[in-house]
Amino acid sequence: MTPPPFSFDLLARQGRARAGVFHTPHGDLPTPVFAPVGTQATVKAVTPAQLHEIGASLVLSNTYHLYLRPGDALVAEMGGLHTFMNWPNPILTDSGGFQVFSLSDTRKIDEDGVTFKSHVDGSMHRFTPEKSIAVQENLGADIIMAFDECAPPHDLAYSQRAMERTHAWLERCQRAKTRPDQALFGIVQGGVFPDLRQRSAEFVASMGLPGCAIGGLSVGETKDEMHRVLETVDPLLPEDKPRYLMGVGTPDDLINGVLRGVDIFDCVLPTRLARHNAALTRTGRLNLVNAGYAQDSSPIDPACGCYTCQHYSRAYLRHLIIAKEMLAATLLSIHNLYTLIQLAREIRQAIIDDKFNGFAEEFLASLTPASREQIGGA
Amino acid sequence: MTPPPFSFDLLARQGRARAGVFHTPHGDLPTPVFAPVGTQATVKAVTPAQLHEIGASLVLSNTYHLYLRPGDALVAEMGGLHTFMNWPNPILTDSGGFQVFSLSDTRKIDEDGVTFKSHVDGSMHRFTPEKSIAVQENLGADIIMAFDECAPPHDLAYSQRAMERTHAWLERCQRAKTRPDQALFGIVQGGVFPDLRQRSAEFVASMGLPGCAIGGLSVGETKDEMHRVLETVDPLLPEDKPRYLMGVGTPDDLINGVLRGVDIFDCVLPTRLARHNAALTRTGRLNLVNAGYAQDSSPIDPACGCYTCQHYSRAYLRHLIIAKEMLAATLLSIHNLYTLIQLAREIRQAIIDDKFNGFAEEFLASLTPASREQIGGA
Repeated sequence: MTPPPFSFDLLARQGRARAGVFHTPHGDLPTPVFAPVGTQATVKAVTPAQLHEIGASLVLSNTYHLYLRPGDALVAEMGGLHTFMNWPNPILTDSGGFQVFSLSDTRKIDEDGVTFKSHVDGSMHRFTPEKSIAVQENLGADIIMAFDECAPPHDLAYSQRAMERTHAWLERCQRAKTRPDQALFGIVQGGVFPDLRQRSAEFVASMGLPGCAIGGLSVGETKDEMHRVLETVDPLLPEDKPRYLMGVGTPDDLINGVLRGVDIFDCVLPTRLARHNAALTRTGRLNLVNAGYAQDSSPIDPACGCYTCQHYSRAYLRHLIIAKEMLAATLLSIHNLYTLIQLAREIRQAIIDDKFNGFAEEFLASLTPASREQIGGA
Repeated sequence: MTPPPFSFDLLARQGRARAGVFHTPHGDLPTPVFAPVGTQATVKAVTPAQLHEIGASLVLSNTYHLYLRPGDALVAEMGGLHTFMNWPNPILTDSGGFQVFSLSDTRKIDEDGVTFKSHVDGSMHRFTPEKSIAVQENLGADIIMAFDECAPPHDLAYSQRAMERTHAWLERCQRAKTRPDQALFGIVQGGVFPDLRQRSAEFVASMGLPGCAIGGLSVGETKDEMHRVLETVDPLLPEDKPRYLMGVGTPDDLINGVLRGVDIFDCVLPTRLARHNAALTRTGRLNLVNAGYAQDSSPIDPACGCYTCQHYSRAYLRHLIIAKEMLAATLLSIHNLYTLIQLAREIRQAIIDDKFNGFAEEFLASLTPASREQIGGA
């Protein structure tokens, strides 16, 4: 029997860590999973064929960017985002909220929505919950996100207001939604405040949605604060639905997130680092522009199975960087994405094999203070 | 029985057109062939895996650039160019001459060689025939080129001087060469002047080298002048050796070159056009930045079998260009290279099938004056 759209099968658990499969109209998503970010309907510098080879299953794209350019109506006319960008597997779009709120000087929030100025041409636009859903229905991703407000994490009054607005907007998003082939995820907000996070998780859980997201993290709080938020919301979210930790995804974040019940991660870090000449490893970074790599015939990581590490020396990668060749960004993006996607796969297998606690312990013990700092930020 | 290194098997002929196989230490080269240019040890914006999928067999790289950066000694230390750039198939390096002579204001020629200023850091360097060969031996390509002087094509006195120098330098290159696993090609010079080209072809033919190149074309002369030069040298060059027309390679150049006995072509046009948002077709170009393509759901060329045309609309490619996404250069490079490589393959098959005359006639008849102008230059 075919499972209903968007059902989530939990295959194994170890502590709070979960291994599962989320069924979508564009295929099964094994979790835990790391999703590359394709902001403008392309994961920067890599083709979908390369993404497939890397082992990517879910790709994220950004509603704000695609609404402005090329326009969601055009994407719909071209058959939707899957066809347009040639990614036949699951896609997730965000709501546009996070990007719009990031335009701190050129947007105005009211109870109904947000008016903002385009970063592309300065024109004025307005997003409401209904508009965000309409745009996301045009784009046609498998997983769509409720329109939410992400507040500065340590401002209690603002966090409470933003959370209440986020809840009201989630109800409007659910009413506005029409496509049965898209799963709407609600977003838990509430800054670093346990009572707000608790209220928000209970509210989102009560909506009966096919998945829940945890937003407003990796925006200025400490890692310890992030972990406490995850620990607060984890027991309150439905067990039988996937949990998506938005915009978070260093190697240690994957471990720490899965330890606290997270199933889905995304982050621009691997592709952004690649465009800044840095190779991500599980425990740190190599800045390949350094002269010390000029004659280094070893790969980025001798233990890595990616195309880049199988075929290229650090000396060659450094040459490409110094010579300003585009291939540098492509080869580094392949390696960096593979590092996170492969780590998520190993985490999943460890949970299934009932070995994740040891795996996580060993991983976290291997981090030095220096490597923690290196992988800690973008 | 294994054929000796660098033997050339002629499989079929039709008129002056030839279909053959050139055997090299890194595999067989079916001719006619179009070689992508990988100036700095990378074909810009594409991986070797993508080149392989496109059907590339020979890749060209530039001695001048690699000598300056990262340095030929480093490439040798890294196992040579094949290993360094991960291209296990045949590679050809030029002599550095053309690039050095192009630095018209910052180089000084004498009978012994050329002193020039690096475009990278302004430092002074000197190339002689012996130095060019030593650098090319460090790089380790299968086909290496004699150090030559390319004169302005319509300057008789200069063309004669440059030709005589080129001949003297060819003798020095042959004496300097030590590696048996590299084939040295001599270069026919002589501008647009039939008597010079005749003398030069006879001289190069007399050297008993494994291949001959025709240089000094596509540098300011007309296409008719180029064709007359090819017609002059064709009967004078050895039948049993491949002929390489240097730096020439629009679709009509392939047809017109093969009609006049050419076996090997290379040109930066397909990858350069790609980085300037232009898609090459057999009979013209599409400038994909044009607004007319914004809602165009068709591929660049519905008849094309490349990855780009199989998966992407013109609307998507235009979106990538407008959004300044690197994937645009990759997808357009794949298409443009495929167009020329596939055309060379079809030409080869037509010769084998004894249908090349009709193929060439039909191809040339399909060119309008506008498309001739479009595909005529970079």
